[in-house]
Amino acid sequence: MTSFVSTAIGNVMNGPVAWIAVDWGTSNLRAWAMAEEGRVIANAASEAGMERLSRDDFEPTLLSVVDGWLTSGRKTRIVACGMVGARQGWMEAAYASVPCTPVTQTIAPECRDPRLEVHILGGIRQLHPPDVMRGEETQIAGVLLHEPGFEGVICLPGTHTKWVEVAGGIITRFQTFMTGELFGLLSTQSVLRHSMPAGTGWDDEAFVAAVVESAMDTHALAARLFSVRAATLVADLTPAAAKARLSGLLIGAEIASTRSMWSRQRLLIAGNGRQANLYSEALSRLGGASSLIDASELTLAGLIAANVAFAKEAP
Amino acid sequence: MTSFVSTAIGNVMNGPVAWIAVDWGTSNLRAWAMAEEGRVIANAASEAGMERLSRDDFEPTLLSVVDGWLTSGRKTRIVACGMVGARQGWMEAAYASVPCTPVTQTIAPECRDPRLEVHILGGIRQLHPPDVMRGEETQIAGVLLHEPGFEGVICLPGTHTKWVEVAGGIITRFQTFMTGELFGLLSTQSVLRHSMPAGTGWDDEAFVAAVVESAMDTHALAARLFSVRAATLVADLTPAAAKARLSGLLIGAEIASTRSMWSRQRLLIAGNGRQANLYSEALSRLGGASSLIDASELTLAGLIAANVAFAKEAP
Repeated sequence: MTSFVSTAIGNVMNGPVAWIAVDWGTSNLRAWAMAEEGRVIANAASEAGMERLSRDDFEPTLLSVVDGWLTSGRKTRIVACGMVGARQGWMEAAYASVPCTPVTQTIAPECRDPRLEVHILGGIRQLHPPDVMRGEETQIAGVLLHEPGFEGVICLPGTHTKWVEVAGGIITRFQTFMTGELFGLLSTQSVLRHSMPAGTGWDDEAFVAAVVESAMDTHALAARLFSVRAATLVADLTPAAAKARLSGLLIGAEIASTRSMWSRQRLLIAGNGRQANLYSEALSRLGGASSLIDASELTLAGLIAANVAFAKEAP
Repeated sequence: MTSFVSTAIGNVMNGPVAWIAVDWGTSNLRAWAMAEEGRVIANAASEAGMERLSRDDFEPTLLSVVDGWLTSGRKTRIVACGMVGARQGWMEAAYASVPCTPVTQTIAPECRDPRLEVHILGGIRQLHPPDVMRGEETQIAGVLLHEPGFEGVICLPGTHTKWVEVAGGIITRFQTFMTGELFGLLSTQSVLRHSMPAGTGWDDEAFVAAVVESAMDTHALAARLFSVRAATLVADLTPAAAKARLSGLLIGAEIASTRSMWSRQRLLIAGNGRQANLYSEALSRLGGASSLIDASELTLAGLIAANVAFAKEAP
């Protein structure tokens, strides 16, 4: 990925802080002290995710992370995205409905500290069929900062993998799969856990075979899932093959059912490491082509894009 | 269901105990003191299921339940089925491979108490595609005791729902769906739990609509599942409708993918109460006909059938 975001330089201050970017998710938060444009001058992280906080905790939590970057006597703009804007978060930032640009509505919670000017980006919803995202839209904005003319589909693998169609800078439709959460629950909480004890390795051949099997006939997924356990008992399936097979069955079914999205247009997989590679491998086995983009800086890039929009609006 | 099993009469003894039937599953055990043939003269239950016991606990646990039914100086035959015969149980009772009769192999663990003669029924396996059952084969034997000429499919709704094809007294093939376990995990452990808090009611219209939607296109189940959460957020889906929709999506996909089994032959749903009724309702919405059989006495009936076989073999 080209360097549209300057590399973070740890926690050492390096020039005046023009604004602050915050990615505040369910389980943690990351913050960057920014010079104007996209230069990072410091960063910080905390495990004070949305799920641990009640409404009154958000401002003190934010201050505990960014206080050293604020200047007394003037407001510093803070642009935040993610579950901080959910109904259970600091303040609900409404969903915009597709078709829409990735960064649209924002909400500004009132702060007691006069140095804070907080803007929370809203999520995006789709009414038919019902779907929602909150946080991923900022990653999409990051892709578009990188490549403003992108047209095609962006796949964001994760606990809830998103497939997002983008044309002319607009998100036109999207679909969320619970594949990651299903893998987590099934591999650790269901009867299948006996086939893949903690610490189990990985069998790539079993993954590929399961992708193809599942994609050829996405019927009876709940039966194929049980076959993972049964094959351990009657066919000596190894733990590594069982784990890879479970993953392949789920990812194969997902990729087969998104074929109409990726078969006729460009596909970008925006993810990190192992999970993005599995999606890429499964796609190529099913006849799809994709390119990979490292997702680790996409959220920051999207926050930069949002800040540019704010800067234009400001008097 | 006709009374091929006499009604249990509590714990009052009523005549000599000829043999003892035991249904010993993962989470509990039930035992019946039997006169010859199918007359129950006492029963008992315990929560000492297989999962709580190590190998040496099984005999003392059994004794704690049936001791009062034994006669000193002679052996009493005990016929047991279920997870007690699994690898993690008292002693592994091997799987028979389909095609086979429901009750085939047994194993006899050695007991210290000279009054015990224990026989554990084996499970049934299928090699292609891999599948296993342990306990349900005894319920199938119970159906066949009730109707020896049954030909068709028996659906046994449960945590792991089984669809079993029977012809000429033989199990020819079967398929297990994790539908019940998926519903349990998704409704209580996944992001969907927020859409259906504990104590949520039931919306039957939402169930039926989801059955039809899911069966019309079983693709993208993992995406439809997420739509339950999304519809709560963007379309005011009620908790009762969310819960019923989750159930309908899973059961609808299952019934659609077993169509080749039930569309051309008789279908019997062997279950209890609510869950069996949901399967029956979903089937009828998808154009299937089924009859219901109360499963609560089927295991005992199957154990009676097994005991008849033992009695014939005995010198």
